[in-house]
Amino acid sequence: MDGLPGSGRLPQPMRHQRAAIFGASGGIGAALGAQLLSSGRYQQTFLGARTSCLVEQADGVPFQFDLTDESSIAEAAEMIGKSGPLDLVIVATGMLHRTDLPLPEKSWRAIDGQAMAQQFAINSIGPALIAKHMLPLLRRDSRSVFVALSARVGSIGDNRLGGWHSYRASKAALNMLVRNFAIELATRNRQAIAVTIHPGTVDTALSSPFQRGVPSGQLFSPDHSAAQILTVIDRLSAADSGGLFAWDGEQIPY
Amino acid sequence: MDGLPGSGRLPQPMRHQRAAIFGASGGIGAALGAQLLSSGRYQQTFLGARTSCLVEQADGVPFQFDLTDESSIAEAAEMIGKSGPLDLVIVATGMLHRTDLPLPEKSWRAIDGQAMAQQFAINSIGPALIAKHMLPLLRRDSRSVFVALSARVGSIGDNRLGGWHSYRASKAALNMLVRNFAIELATRNRQAIAVTIHPGTVDTALSSPFQRGVPSGQLFSPDHSAAQILTVIDRLSAADSGGLFAWDGEQIPY
Repeated sequence: MDGLPGSGRLPQPMRHQRAAIFGASGGIGAALGAQLLSSGRYQQTFLGARTSCLVEQADGVPFQFDLTDESSIAEAAEMIGKSGPLDLVIVATGMLHRTDLPLPEKSWRAIDGQAMAQQFAINSIGPALIAKHMLPLLRRDSRSVFVALSARVGSIGDNRLGGWHSYRASKAALNMLVRNFAIELATRNRQAIAVTIHPGTVDTALSSPFQRGVPSGQLFSPDHSAAQILTVIDRLSAADSGGLFAWDGEQIPY
Repeated sequence: MDGLPGSGRLPQPMRHQRAAIFGASGGIGAALGAQLLSSGRYQQTFLGARTSCLVEQADGVPFQFDLTDESSIAEAAEMIGKSGPLDLVIVATGMLHRTDLPLPEKSWRAIDGQAMAQQFAINSIGPALIAKHMLPLLRRDSRSVFVALSARVGSIGDNRLGGWHSYRASKAALNMLVRNFAIELATRNRQAIAVTIHPGTVDTALSSPFQRGVPSGQLFSPDHSAAQILTVIDRLSAADSGGLFAWDGEQIPY
């Protein structure tokens, strides 16, 4: 992907497409869900959250799942898979801080084994379990896309500041997992794509304690970030599969 | 590091140096311990294993630790730190397969949340806890080195084959953590170095089920791998800190 605006192929609306979002009640996930629904492109849009009543999109098909409970993900996949293959799966879950855990760490002194394990559980293992159950549902006869939201701070090569040990490590692990999925997907469908996308710094609960240092104009609304992400997704080609991309389409080194 | 044999500065033996190996009963760790002891360079060489009686080096100082028990690592660090700062810390632990867990995975179908969590616990979180307690013990007034054994298959950029999802992800996470440690170390001592090293495919219990495809001459003895690793360590400079290096000194992309 060259990342130049307007240079990509923008698929036309096709009402028979089907999409699923895991994490559709969060800031970015909710905005993604609303935009998928308003695009008129999807026959069905499945919107999943830990508490399904949190998904307030009347036209979407809500479902419940818990990242730490594989059976809930398997049940969701079974429900979603009944009506046909999917064109797009987005994993928009993620965890950076928790009031009850010493996260994110500013120093190695703050490293806590249980907190780090929790970060891996939410940011790496949960998305892997979603992939395990949803990748087999991706359309095999034409282009289909699996996206997991990652983060620029999950880039090892781009890491200049350090800190946030668990979050960075869990996102680097996620980037590896998705590259693995891309390789395996290609053996099923050479038009299938699996990528990670950095949504920018978005004004959500995830980033709220860390927004002070963000320069003016670089703190996105969830709507703006979601629109950027969907544009990036539309422009991805099979050659991009396995990569980590920013909200503007720029490829980020691992 | 340019990786050319013979081009580096080879420090002279200095009997006042002190080294510690975590995982000194494993194939590579035991060979590293024996070579550190026979080098005559170290006043003290601390050799740690889960069961301290497994460390059979008469001249070393044995200690016990469990990667999944931070208090055991803290106690080891306290014992080691009493006699002065360290010049070299090597984390030679690692887990690729277990008979009681579906590891390593050949496909996303084999992904198991508990097995992946166990892989992160041993390959990512355990080394991070060792770093938390041992990095403060590194010598601050001259060159000192922290090494964690990683793996080429933990390189996201180098990943062409896929599979081994949990192992790859846990090593990518480790590579990120060590880069983070390198950044933090540099604020304490600009001569301090933290790197990950790929030991090659070594004839140990870790690799034994996976040696069939290894070309002749590319399956190293633990002694050969350990000698290579120690040569790489001697040639590292502060500019290399944070990097992932192969047994021959070649830098591997993240």
